[in-house]
Amino acid sequence: MLRLSSLFVRTLRENPSDAEVPSHQLMLRAGYIRRAAPGGFTWLPLGWIVYRNVERVIREEMDAAGFQEVHFPALLPREPYEATNRWSEYGPNLFRLQDRRGADYLLGPTHEEMFTLLVKDLYSSYKDLPLVIYQIQTKYRDEARPRAGLLRGREFVMKDSYSFDIDDAGLGKSYEDHRAAYIRTFERLGLPFVIVSAMSGAMGGSKSEEFLTPLEVGEDTFVRCACGYAANTEAVRVPTPRSIAIDAAPAARVVDTPGTPTIATLVDLLNDRADLRRNDRAWSAADTLKNVIVMLRYPDGRREPLAIGLPGDREVDMKRLGAQVGPAEPEAFSEADFAAHSVLVKGYIGPDMLGTTSASGIRYVVDPRVVPGTRWVTGANAAGTHVVDLTCGRDFTPDGTIEAAEVLAGDPCPACAERGIDSTLEMARGIEIGHIFQLGRKYAEALGLTVLDQNGKQVVVTMGSYGIGVSRAVAAIAEATADDMGLCWPREVAPADVHVVIASKGSDIIATEAERLTSELEARGVRVMLDDRTTVSPGVKFKDAELIGVPTIVIVGKGLADGVIEVRDRATNERRNIAVTSAVDELVAQCSANPRR
Amino acid sequence: MLRLSSLFVRTLRENPSDAEVPSHQLMLRAGYIRRAAPGGFTWLPLGWIVYRNVERVIREEMDAAGFQEVHFPALLPREPYEATNRWSEYGPNLFRLQDRRGADYLLGPTHEEMFTLLVKDLYSSYKDLPLVIYQIQTKYRDEARPRAGLLRGREFVMKDSYSFDIDDAGLGKSYEDHRAAYIRTFERLGLPFVIVSAMSGAMGGSKSEEFLTPLEVGEDTFVRCACGYAANTEAVRVPTPRSIAIDAAPAARVVDTPGTPTIATLVDLLNDRADLRRNDRAWSAADTLKNVIVMLRYPDGRREPLAIGLPGDREVDMKRLGAQVGPAEPEAFSEADFAAHSVLVKGYIGPDMLGTTSASGIRYVVDPRVVPGTRWVTGANAAGTHVVDLTCGRDFTPDGTIEAAEVLAGDPCPACAERGIDSTLEMARGIEIGHIFQLGRKYAEALGLTVLDQNGKQVVVTMGSYGIGVSRAVAAIAEATADDMGLCWPREVAPADVHVVIASKGSDIIATEAERLTSELEARGVRVMLDDRTTVSPGVKFKDAELIGVPTIVIVGKGLADGVIEVRDRATNERRNIAVTSAVDELVAQCSANPRR
Repeated sequence: MLRLSSLFVRTLRENPSDAEVPSHQLMLRAGYIRRAAPGGFTWLPLGWIVYRNVERVIREEMDAAGFQEVHFPALLPREPYEATNRWSEYGPNLFRLQDRRGADYLLGPTHEEMFTLLVKDLYSSYKDLPLVIYQIQTKYRDEARPRAGLLRGREFVMKDSYSFDIDDAGLGKSYEDHRAAYIRTFERLGLPFVIVSAMSGAMGGSKSEEFLTPLEVGEDTFVRCACGYAANTEAVRVPTPRSIAIDAAPAARVVDTPGTPTIATLVDLLNDRADLRRNDRAWSAADTLKNVIVMLRYPDGRREPLAIGLPGDREVDMKRLGAQVGPAEPEAFSEADFAAHSVLVKGYIGPDMLGTTSASGIRYVVDPRVVPGTRWVTGANAAGTHVVDLTCGRDFTPDGTIEAAEVLAGDPCPACAERGIDSTLEMARGIEIGHIFQLGRKYAEALGLTVLDQNGKQVVVTMGSYGIGVSRAVAAIAEATADDMGLCWPREVAPADVHVVIASKGSDIIATEAERLTSELEARGVRVMLDDRTTVSPGVKFKDAELIGVPTIVIVGKGLADGVIEVRDRATNERRNIAVTSAVDELVAQCSANPRR
Repeated sequence: MLRLSSLFVRTLRENPSDAEVPSHQLMLRAGYIRRAAPGGFTWLPLGWIVYRNVERVIREEMDAAGFQEVHFPALLPREPYEATNRWSEYGPNLFRLQDRRGADYLLGPTHEEMFTLLVKDLYSSYKDLPLVIYQIQTKYRDEARPRAGLLRGREFVMKDSYSFDIDDAGLGKSYEDHRAAYIRTFERLGLPFVIVSAMSGAMGGSKSEEFLTPLEVGEDTFVRCACGYAANTEAVRVPTPRSIAIDAAPAARVVDTPGTPTIATLVDLLNDRADLRRNDRAWSAADTLKNVIVMLRYPDGRREPLAIGLPGDREVDMKRLGAQVGPAEPEAFSEADFAAHSVLVKGYIGPDMLGTTSASGIRYVVDPRVVPGTRWVTGANAAGTHVVDLTCGRDFTPDGTIEAAEVLAGDPCPACAERGIDSTLEMARGIEIGHIFQLGRKYAEALGLTVLDQNGKQVVVTMGSYGIGVSRAVAAIAEATADDMGLCWPREVAPADVHVVIASKGSDIIATEAERLTSELEARGVRVMLDDRTTVSPGVKFKDAELIGVPTIVIVGKGLADGVIEVRDRATNERRNIAVTSAVDELVAQCSANPRR
């Protein structure tokens, strides 16, 4: 039982100035968390109860799936991460430190290496597999911009599981088992989610999906189609158009286009000038080939320029690009970089000066829409000049393609396109709450995890990795369920089932009756929060009850004279009076209808 | 239910070479933990179940006492620890690191500062007090010598509580509440303990007691007396003898004592030489005053010599000395140090050359037994010379006293001495499993935690701090309960209640019956571990059951033909056959007799 008279909590009426998103504001205001450091939070008693409920649901579902819990240290030696190259690949995102002897350590951002080595330590035969082990543990990442409270911290809790199988078929099953367990977990947590195709990121490997809670405050952008296709924008594959016969293409010609350093000025000029104007339709930005130069910075400090050619109606999406070039990170190409590459004429860069065999020597990759036979207006490598009808595969040959152009609402759905159907994508934002991922053999190979197969031959084990952001899930639930009045927890994770408000200020008959009700409810297994404060008015108590967000609010007040108490449903705000004589039975029934297991 | 056929575990027949103490050896051999880093361990599934049981018991007892759980980050900013000076006082024991912006952080070794600041953040009135909040959290200390597995790691879990009171009377009650809660906790955990008076160490503050599990492998030495007195040796106060009238003392005289650089050679010479021999009895080492010079190193790097005068039959106890001079750490006085203090004649140092006003200028503190009027044989500050009848208070005056001499079995009990009773101390070793401590106002003052009292005046809050080593408790329980055959867990923390062994190799009638028994026991709430492996012999299964240490072992084997199964009590090794028809009822009763709540 929680008594507000002694509970370690202070509610705030105003939104704290340093909180940006609603879940963060409300969890601060309602006294669930406090900021302790940049990206580090202290859980107050109410927050910790909710956190532990979320953790419990996740653990129960992992255990029910037959996964076994272990627990690693967070302070880890450098060597295993050196063996997989992640000591350096993580770059500035890794917290590194030395012990008193000068030995290198890190604070684990994820534990692939340690799990792999543990299984190598204990297991040696195909008979030991399949195996799924998991932990619920504090992780550390030195985020450049910790934000949004628990949604992106530097110290946070993850549930991370790893599967170990003898072959791809086994991995496929372990992956599906996790997918099913995650669906059950998020359903129990009352957390809406979409499963989207995802990129593997810095992890290597093959199939990968994310569980996203669709919310505007989310950092992930995803697309979806009525056909069921859904993908993180980073993972969207642009449908590749068919190549066009090159024979029919007119010869490329260089034209003077003074004062056209941008796509917009170029398109205007093309449509304005009679000698350049098209007969069939107006020129659009999509007819131009924009060449963007970026600088890739590798974890070892090496810098390498990269040229990206894409239709002029789209920008480069730095997150999509980043996912393609990881562990390198893309940066803007600076004035100094331009100065160091004098063949590049800013605003008028054309394919002639791009590519590993060109005068610049800069690797040149293009959007998948730039297929052989497509004709483009693009830079002619001299200020105020462009070239028209420059034809891919005849006049220039890129070094490869890249998925770096922004995805836009209305773009064709790649899944439908494959089946020859025209359909368009819609876009949304979400919070990543889970990620399942077929790792494959990368870590097992790097760290030598093999087992004897049925024929006595050593084979490399196939792994999967699966994560749920536990502390982030708390914030995501808050974010997905809160309303204008405050937090609004699903019963399974709420700090209590029933919030009993003593709507009086003294130790009177009302207080006595509320205490009796509370005791009887607790005896029946209902978790009660009792507002027994004598220093605040009923009005303040009602506001606090709405802010704190326990699913059922019971008001014991003047109605008692008529033998009734008021029951409010926090989520629907539905209010009704019930007879105090049957109140315990009714409330027990209400709480059991959606029980906390 | 735990099935050994799929449980992630490997038992070892041999003791691992790197494990020193029995609990560590057995937990490695039985597949409870694995070493992950120096002083860092990975919990395997069996170990993690036991760990979580221990954590649960501790949490339940804290909650039952009305203490409220919160949770802080482990990665903490420097500033609060700077304010209390602990950033530097912790010296090399603190893991320090910088984030990507170069800001200083530490991995929390203990959270006094953070708790103090949190209460300051939320509370402001005497009406809010008393308050006790606690957390169960991973702590970090860069131990010079991590050892003994979980007993002294660098990453470990602590339950730490803090009490906040308006005055000393409140602190006294909070302290007693914790003492009572700790007694209940350790009793439930099946962990034998002694409560001993303790030093406050680097923490400042007043009253302090430790809970020690008396075991030879423990790092703490404590004394106890039949009267009930018990103290960590660091906290033992030597009974001060009465001063002796100086008038009666003979004059001091310098004597030639060639070749007597040690106490033993000196005593031999005194007893051999007719001119020095005593009439009443032989000289003993206790008649000599040994002057030991040590170097104190402060956290800021400063070094300062200290001279300690103590009876020659005792050594300086570096742990007792360390507890007195903290945060400075005592080190040996090197040859180079002697060279820098040429007035000190090694082996013949006498009080004349010691003290802040002496030629050496070295601060001189003496054992409490060196009271005014006591007469000593001691060095005369020239090689081969000593002085006899040098009388304290007449011939030399120390700068103070210090509790740094070793405590020996048979020393007088200080508690009895106070009451004028003669009684002697016995000595024992123990593992510190808990520490309760009246902090007082040190942290509240340093960090400005005040509240308004009843008269509207700001008063500094009075604090207590209370710790239980959670991961260490697991090892202490293992250590206290294990026997020659293996681990032997109390039911409350055991990984299962019953270990069912299928004493056959096939999927025969025996296996079927064991599976049925297991299902029925689980349905009745008994936690079962089932050894359903088909690849190992019954003999191996019996050995593993003894090693793993579940309290009740059930063997389903050939006896089944006669309708019986064998039940073994792991702790007493008592064995009896029971009818398979009544087995479930009997086993349920046996497990409930000492229930796991």
